[in-house]
Amino acid sequence: MSASRNPETKGKPMSGKLYVISGPSGAGKGTICRELAKLTDFYLSISMTTRAPRGTEQDGVEYFFVTREEFEREIREGGLLEYAETYGNYYGTPKRKMEAQLAKGRDVVLEIDVKGAAQVREIYPEAILIFIIPPSLAVLKSRLEKRGTETQEKIRERMSIVAREVREIPKYDYYVVNDDLAIAVRDAKAIMDAEKCSVRGPMTDLIERFEEEEKAL
Amino acid sequence: MSASRNPETKGKPMSGKLYVISGPSGAGKGTICRELAKLTDFYLSISMTTRAPRGTEQDGVEYFFVTREEFEREIREGGLLEYAETYGNYYGTPKRKMEAQLAKGRDVVLEIDVKGAAQVREIYPEAILIFIIPPSLAVLKSRLEKRGTETQEKIRERMSIVAREVREIPKYDYYVVNDDLAIAVRDAKAIMDAEKCSVRGPMTDLIERFEEEEKAL
Repeated sequence: MSASRNPETKGKPMSGKLYVISGPSGAGKGTICRELAKLTDFYLSISMTTRAPRGTEQDGVEYFFVTREEFEREIREGGLLEYAETYGNYYGTPKRKMEAQLAKGRDVVLEIDVKGAAQVREIYPEAILIFIIPPSLAVLKSRLEKRGTETQEKIRERMSIVAREVREIPKYDYYVVNDDLAIAVRDAKAIMDAEKCSVRGPMTDLIERFEEEEKAL
Repeated sequence: MSASRNPETKGKPMSGKLYVISGPSGAGKGTICRELAKLTDFYLSISMTTRAPRGTEQDGVEYFFVTREEFEREIREGGLLEYAETYGNYYGTPKRKMEAQLAKGRDVVLEIDVKGAAQVREIYPEAILIFIIPPSLAVLKSRLEKRGTETQEKIRERMSIVAREVREIPKYDYYVVNDDLAIAVRDAKAIMDAEKCSVRGPMTDLIERFEEEEKAL
């Protein structure tokens, strides 16, 4: 029995799906990814950055925190799927582990910013892009004010970035409004379950399996 | 506030989605639809037929059972979305109630055979087509044998129809393998939840709402 005949994969070739969970900073991408990981199996890719950890951030949880030297070595060695420099700090997506997981048929989730998502789309046109959006700017603003880590000016600046990033939604496959976290997580999980049922290509394996069975009856 | 600005509809125009649940006879379309109706709100369209009720079938549950005269009057009056005559019996989809529900923004589910689904796709290209498939012909055969309502010859004939109908899968949006009913229902529900998050068109309402909010800050 070949891998593609395994009933577990429903006649599809064994290869994981790549999900990109993106959207404005503060929309709740990270929280949604971590809640999602409790409900279904996937490899959650962690970004690499040269910026310093903030508050309770831990190495290997929110990010892999590395030095500029380490980051630049990764760039030279082709170890990054995409990277960018923002406000003097590097951010990037480590490539090797993620690709190994996809190759062995495991789904991968990348949690990255809107620019990074566009780059991933170019490299993996078949990636499934999900935009996490706050219910409104007013809600996002009040969340950031409660967190109290940024000045009013910074928050104001962020809001205009959000309004600009929202214009990228038409390039995505799905959008999830993060108003109630439980509903947002349910929607993200539904997208992953539905994608497993999605008809793609000529479905030859499945059709042939039924035809062969019919002949053998 | 216009209907399209209602946060409930997430910036999308108020109009229901049309789901077509189709697939071979005996795959479990009806059971899945009835279980789905317990989990989420939609209008389940009931087909009309001139064939006699079987076993415990009730008028208005499995079908609307009508006379040939009544059916032909519906055809003349344009009351059917699609219809076909199979083995001397008419089967059709009543149109008016379904369209009224869609117009007022409610989702509609049609449970119809594979031929009917193809006709609906032509009339409503934006319909979401879900193919319910048994895990294998062997499983379907044993289900039908247990039910004991059909001769071996009839069952054999059915199997070749199923193998032929499975070839229509590439025309569908999704396929759900009905092996474990609970999982099949979960998948169908996930498809409906994910479709609500699907990015379609330019998403102008949502983008403009964020831009206006940003200007007003």
